Amino acid sequence: MPWLKNLIKISKTISNQSSAYNKSITPLASPLLTQFLQFTKQYSTNHHHHDVVGLEATKSDQKPRIVVLGSGWAGCRLMKDIDTNIYDVVCVSPRNHMVFTPLLASTCVGTLEFRSVAEPIGRIQPAVSTQPTSFFFLANCNAIDFDNHMIQCQTVTEGVETLEPWNFNVSYDKLVIASGAHALTFGIKGVNEHATFLREVHHAQEIRRKLLLNLMLSDVPGVSEEEKRRLLHCVVVGGGPTGVEFSGELSDFILKDVHQRYAHVKDYIHVTLIEASLANEILSSFDDRLRVYATKQLTKSGVRLVRGLVQDVQPEKIILSDGTNVPYGLLVWSTGVGPSPFVNSLDIPKAKGRIGIDEWLRVPSVQDVYSIGDCSGFLESTGRQVLPALAQVAERQGKYLASLLNKVGKEGGGHANCAQNINLGDPFVYKHLGSMATIGRYKALVDLRESKEAKGVSLAGFTSFFVWRSAYLTRVVSWRNKIYVLINWLTTLVFGRDISRI
Amino acid sequence: MPWLKNLIKISKTISNQSSAYNKSITPLASPLLTQFLQFTKQYSTNHHHHDVVGLEATKSDQKPRIVVLGSGWAGCRLMKDIDTNIYDVVCVSPRNHMVFTPLLASTCVGTLEFRSVAEPIGRIQPAVSTQPTSFFFLANCNAIDFDNHMIQCQTVTEGVETLEPWNFNVSYDKLVIASGAHALTFGIKGVNEHATFLREVHHAQEIRRKLLLNLMLSDVPGVSEEEKRRLLHCVVVGGGPTGVEFSGELSDFILKDVHQRYAHVKDYIHVTLIEASLANEILSSFDDRLRVYATKQLTKSGVRLVRGLVQDVQPEKIILSDGTNVPYGLLVWSTGVGPSPFVNSLDIPKAKGRIGIDEWLRVPSVQDVYSIGDCSGFLESTGRQVLPALAQVAERQGKYLASLLNKVGKEGGGHANCAQNINLGDPFVYKHLGSMATIGRYKALVDLRESKEAKGVSLAGFTSFFVWRSAYLTRVVSWRNKIYVLINWLTTLVFGRDISRI
Repeated sequence: MPWLKNLIKISKTISNQSSAYNKSITPLASPLLTQFLQFTKQYSTNHHHHDVVGLEATKSDQKPRIVVLGSGWAGCRLMKDIDTNIYDVVCVSPRNHMVFTPLLASTCVGTLEFRSVAEPIGRIQPAVSTQPTSFFFLANCNAIDFDNHMIQCQTVTEGVETLEPWNFNVSYDKLVIASGAHALTFGIKGVNEHATFLREVHHAQEIRRKLLLNLMLSDVPGVSEEEKRRLLHCVVVGGGPTGVEFSGELSDFILKDVHQRYAHVKDYIHVTLIEASLANEILSSFDDRLRVYATKQLTKSGVRLVRGLVQDVQPEKIILSDGTNVPYGLLVWSTGVGPSPFVNSLDIPKAKGRIGIDEWLRVPSVQDVYSIGDCSGFLESTGRQVLPALAQVAERQGKYLASLLNKVGKEGGGHANCAQNINLGDPFVYKHLGSMATIGRYKALVDLRESKEAKGVSLAGFTSFFVWRSAYLTRVVSWRNKIYVLINWLTTLVFGRDISRI
Repeated sequence: MPWLKNLIKISKTISNQSSAYNKSITPLASPLLTQFLQFTKQYSTNHHHHDVVGLEATKSDQKPRIVVLGSGWAGCRLMKDIDTNIYDVVCVSPRNHMVFTPLLASTCVGTLEFRSVAEPIGRIQPAVSTQPTSFFFLANCNAIDFDNHMIQCQTVTEGVETLEPWNFNVSYDKLVIASGAHALTFGIKGVNEHATFLREVHHAQEIRRKLLLNLMLSDVPGVSEEEKRRLLHCVVVGGGPTGVEFSGELSDFILKDVHQRYAHVKDYIHVTLIEASLANEILSSFDDRLRVYATKQLTKSGVRLVRGLVQDVQPEKIILSDGTNVPYGLLVWSTGVGPSPFVNSLDIPKAKGRIGIDEWLRVPSVQDVYSIGDCSGFLESTGRQVLPALAQVAERQGKYLASLLNKVGKEGGGHANCAQNINLGDPFVYKHLGSMATIGRYKALVDLRESKEAKGVSLAGFTSFFVWRSAYLTRVVSWRNKIYVLINWLTTLVFGRDISRI
């Protein structure tokens, strides 16, 4: 294999040339990892910038670098709008795509396909894949050195045992923390082990695989009636929009697809929605009239609404606080979100556990750091309320911050520690545009009130469903995915949902 | 939860009623598994039919039951054509869909989506999901009791640790063994552990995830040039149609998508195709002229064709018989297929290791057993050659056998041991219609000769590519998937391949 030897020779030559990032490289092999760790240590104590493995601080004649942690609604909207003539963009996230979360519940039963709701970051901000000094790194940020404008990262290698995770540093001129929140479990035992959340595409994939497996296993001869009912008992904990939309999708799937394609076991499958507050207090942020409508419609579709407090989650049953045992085959947990361990680990002022920000979405105690989306909240000193963890808040913040940073960059404040004297303009103001949720059977709720107390238009039924679909279709980021969402909806209508378990 | 208690009560009532299969059921719980195993044991020694957990033998006033092992080309074509007015159909397979294998290589890089090439069995033969006495069981057949017309099965529960596999029996009137073949590794160490085959949808998923992961990891600062080249070195072992088509797809992906979306690392990615025979002896079944053309085209696209014998496969490199070390990031193994352990375990006459069949595709040593597809081969006594392991052989056999069994059923020979005096009509004759393979960059080969020695039309280039796509598009089983294949091709052309790593 002479070409291979040539390649290695060439690579050695190239590695001596200069480039955007430091090339005095240590291979991934683990004996050299100690050597690398020594580098890092040396750096963090002595600031020998040239020994760092990672992206060094930009020089004044280079473009300033914005580092974005996370690839959710906030981070992606920001990246989309950042002027890449002014800035280099570096995104650090454990997933290389943005999930279009409002449509995620539909993918669990095959109404939509997984890829129709996932947008690669490179499609949202092409600079990260095409510009020589912009990057996307599949990694987690583990720590931030605010004083030195630098973050510490570790690559994500899940699923590949032969690869050791790799540590590296990235220096920033501006840092935007948009790393999102974590699902709340309230410390209930067994939730992480046995329940599935519904926040990422791989969650939806897991739910779909489990549901189809249970449908097939329950059809095998010799499975007891009791076990069939358990396997096909789908329990959803949490009556917020995610829990309700998933229950609605599931009941659609049962009424249409299971009845046709799993005729043998169709009478065994049931959906139970457990909500800790009053039994009909689902969708608590919605208009009362809409809530009553949703409750009626879900019940009509066969979803059992149960008031209960989960105390313990075991592999095949949950135990409620009144002692009731609820056997389940599929358990989906959607009881809201709270601060992530990463946010908890940051030593900066917080607001309700979230990263405290001022009206311009800055983290005021440090230079050049901003935070948007579910991980951030207005500091008490701003006199504002912490905003709800909603996609529309995150997206609006991303949009606002992109234009703020573009302005700062244009006025010469792009580099680290250069923005002190720049007028930031108007602060961020959030105006709630309303909420929407589907409840199955071509019905949805649309609540266009600005807040829970305000008056305004609220709609329920097929018209809302049409509004819901149209609104989200226009919001889907890329044309490719708009086309796929539309085609998925059409083929689901005509051919039913796909039940291949792949 | 009074409704849950009611459910259990109802279930107890139902379980006392009679039905198609025995209802004296033991739950899945493991303490009772021993009890179940005793049942099975008792059955197999004493033939107490009423104690069996499973589907009992049909009675003469019931429809006869065809049991099909496998859901590949042979089994699915058979099931599609079986007259369900005459027969009940029971399919036992570890996957609930048929894979449209000629298009599988395209899904590894996102030219097509996974679900576009998977057809659920219920869409191929709706009876298994709608008829009360036809079934699809997600299970493996472990043993066949030819004397008692019964198979032993075990459920597939991969991916779900809380479920114990469950054993059950199925009695048959006619048994069709279409369980396919296994990938050949020639006993080379490490192949099963470190290489990926390309036969199932989950293989294609694994390849796509690994490829995207390696592309992203190689872009992380601090990764050495050598490690980058290793991560992005895609090695394909085996120069048959699968290996060649995958190499072609991969080079398309590199030339179009990697160059655009992974611009930082585009010069590090390479494809090497290793073939044990002479270096340009890829696609050995094709016309010489086509082979030369394919070799030239692949080389032009950057695929390196290497002659070599793999001796050892290690996690990050393979070692050839001449001692060369070939570091790799992705290793795809496609060196053909051979008998599966299940086929090896069957105590019946074989033909080249496959299940021996006569001209009517019967297993002549036993009653009412047939075998089709890659797992079967003509016995020497037939004076015929064992047919190649090709989709078109399997499909033609499935079609032939369905019509044979329909004829037998119509003439009253559907039940076990009832077909001895029925004239089976003409034996199966295979006529090769030709071969096709894509080689990337909108080029393909079409070889319409009946055999390697015969004369006939052979085409190469864009016309062939068009023929290839049109031919397979018409062959895709369902309209749903025809639509999706077409849309996938169009969106790949317009928007490029999807690089979300989900």
